[in-house]
Amino acid sequence: MLQESTYKHNIKCVIEYDGTCFQGFQIQPNVRTVEEVFEYTISQILSEDIKITGSGRTDRYVHAKGQVINFYTNCDIPLERLFRALNRQLPLDIRVKEIEYVPISFHSRFSAIKKEYRYYIKTTPLNAFEHNYIDYQEKLDTNLMEKGLKLLIGQHNFEGFCSVDVDKRKDFTKTIYVASLNKIGDTLEFVFIGSGFLKYQIRRMMAVLIAVGKKEVELDVINKILETRNPFIYTKVANPSGLYLEKVYY
Amino acid sequence: MLQESTYKHNIKCVIEYDGTCFQGFQIQPNVRTVEEVFEYTISQILSEDIKITGSGRTDRYVHAKGQVINFYTNCDIPLERLFRALNRQLPLDIRVKEIEYVPISFHSRFSAIKKEYRYYIKTTPLNAFEHNYIDYQEKLDTNLMEKGLKLLIGQHNFEGFCSVDVDKRKDFTKTIYVASLNKIGDTLEFVFIGSGFLKYQIRRMMAVLIAVGKKEVELDVINKILETRNPFIYTKVANPSGLYLEKVYY
Repeated sequence: MLQESTYKHNIKCVIEYDGTCFQGFQIQPNVRTVEEVFEYTISQILSEDIKITGSGRTDRYVHAKGQVINFYTNCDIPLERLFRALNRQLPLDIRVKEIEYVPISFHSRFSAIKKEYRYYIKTTPLNAFEHNYIDYQEKLDTNLMEKGLKLLIGQHNFEGFCSVDVDKRKDFTKTIYVASLNKIGDTLEFVFIGSGFLKYQIRRMMAVLIAVGKKEVELDVINKILETRNPFIYTKVANPSGLYLEKVYY
Repeated sequence: MLQESTYKHNIKCVIEYDGTCFQGFQIQPNVRTVEEVFEYTISQILSEDIKITGSGRTDRYVHAKGQVINFYTNCDIPLERLFRALNRQLPLDIRVKEIEYVPISFHSRFSAIKKEYRYYIKTTPLNAFEHNYIDYQEKLDTNLMEKGLKLLIGQHNFEGFCSVDVDKRKDFTKTIYVASLNKIGDTLEFVFIGSGFLKYQIRRMMAVLIAVGKKEVELDVINKILETRNPFIYTKVANPSGLYLEKVYY
């Protein structure tokens, strides 16, 4: 791969994927990942060895409705043709929703200013078609959960909600702008918009919120995790199947 | 297995399954089937070697919202407990919706008087989450398809719409009571209610209807297939992922 500046084009795609049959976004040997499948397909179409950059990784079984990737190419293929070719040749569980030329300086990860994730829970038993797409909890006190969500809003050091295998020199300070709960029929939709999210952060926050809603832990545990930055206070990680990367903002 | 009449109980279940990860209903060696998974689970729960009878087979990848099975047992477990145990121990892509005692003479297949199947098609591109659950066709003339549906209603010999590997001594005469099309948003819902359906019949009828809607064949082909009973006139079989066994009537 050449230096970015030597390429003619930088192409940005908004992509959607059903995470059920992917071992996450990031390439790993011998397993099916979004990155590997997309790079293979785009490289085939353009007859070039293309590397893509995603706005961030998503975990195994996590879905995306608005993941953003970009890649550099010298190929002058019309975008409308490339869009059709991608959606014809990609497996049906990855779709390209939007495609556009962006300045060479655009970087899916570094240029992102906000990200939105959503998490879905039902408190009525799931039918046979829902279990890969939504989490189930028997009973939740949503008033308590809404109080918990409010505690997460603002600028905090989120190390206590981060996977323990992350490099400790990392900056764990992030801002959450929106942490809210919508009730859509019998489905609970949790919306998180933030400056960025750490590894497992949403799933760890959701796990604590679920424990609060089930009255297994006190609401104040959320403050304790934020204040102490101790990732061992509550170590559960919520089910990945309920989580969707909804949108990346630039 | 003993004679039916020697058992104390005959239990009927209405079950739902996502066909995506099943190689159909019927047990086959070395693959995951609904029958095998259900028999394994119910046998574990009751500590008896249980055999189940389904209302009929469904093909690989075909879904069911209302498949009916029954089985004989001497176990006196309360039904409410059995219902909960099944939904706890079955994999999440099979759910039990209803459970009840029925007379020993009840037989899921022989007692059925009507069956309802539905088939779903979108004419707008599918998103990443839909491809296992709905068929996609680029453009369809639904007026022509509705005319085609009307030709199928009534009592006919459906051998021309049946898989060619079926025993020719079989009775191919069936009655279709309902063959209709509902438009729900951008989804086409085809409803078939009949006295029974032959192997591949719905998928072969749907394939011809799709070809009619795409103007690839004349409407009159449907009459020709019914009159000649020749299964080689049109041999395509529609995508199983769009098909649902909706209900069995007793």
